[in-house]
Amino acid sequence: MHRSRLAAIGIDCPTRLADANARFWSGALRPEAPGPSAMRANDPYVTVGSVAGREVFVQGIGSDEARVHLDIETDDVDAEVARLVALGATRVEQIRTWWVMRDPSGQLFCVVRPQTADFPGDAATWP
Amino acid sequence: MHRSRLAAIGIDCPTRLADANARFWSGALRPEAPGPSAMRANDPYVTVGSVAGREVFVQGIGSDEARVHLDIETDDVDAEVARLVALGATRVEQIRTWWVMRDPSGQLFCVVRPQTADFPGDAATWP
Repeated sequence: MHRSRLAAIGIDCPTRLADANARFWSGALRPEAPGPSAMRANDPYVTVGSVAGREVFVQGIGSDEARVHLDIETDDVDAEVARLVALGATRVEQIRTWWVMRDPSGQLFCVVRPQTADFPGDAATWP
Repeated sequence: MHRSRLAAIGIDCPTRLADANARFWSGALRPEAPGPSAMRANDPYVTVGSVAGREVFVQGIGSDEARVHLDIETDDVDAEVARLVALGATRVEQIRTWWVMRDPSGQLFCVVRPQTADFPGDAATWP
């Protein structure tokens, strides 16, 4: 038995634009718990804050790509990855404690360990 | 004075993949209020359902592109578009009642009229 739910919306963009993008999305969405407003050295993530109980963050990525990706949090990453593969997802890469996957249309998403303070909260339970 | 908040997560993908993608995301996220499981004629949208009080939907688009985009709902689309332009967004196109815009990293998002049943709910109020 394991549990999972939507944890976060990640806004990936070129690193040089990450600060401006985080400021924009913080202003646009007015998060309940606003995060830091600037990137820190050696950390690609800028927290935008909590929106509807889920995290929104900007991730600076090296390339010129930009995308929005969803993170699913779970108390059993291997079991959740297997469940999502059975539903039609594909594995891309395991990075430390999380998996990068693709949905049936090829879009990237991640399966991560619990990230939200109140997990499991309204998470689904899977047999 | 107007109000706005995050309304929806839209998962855009080629139309031929939209049904499979909607089934996948419905299984992945187990929405609180699951939507229809298949596309209807002349309707590019497939409702996945409500997750954390926000809507998740799949949109079939004609091209081979795929992306996730966010929708911001508001009771004054023109005022909200102007507010977001001042924050750094750019206008792309007005479609019937909504605006397609780009964030500072060029990613598409939309400003739409109220979509959720409980709007304004926790929406922010702007002077």
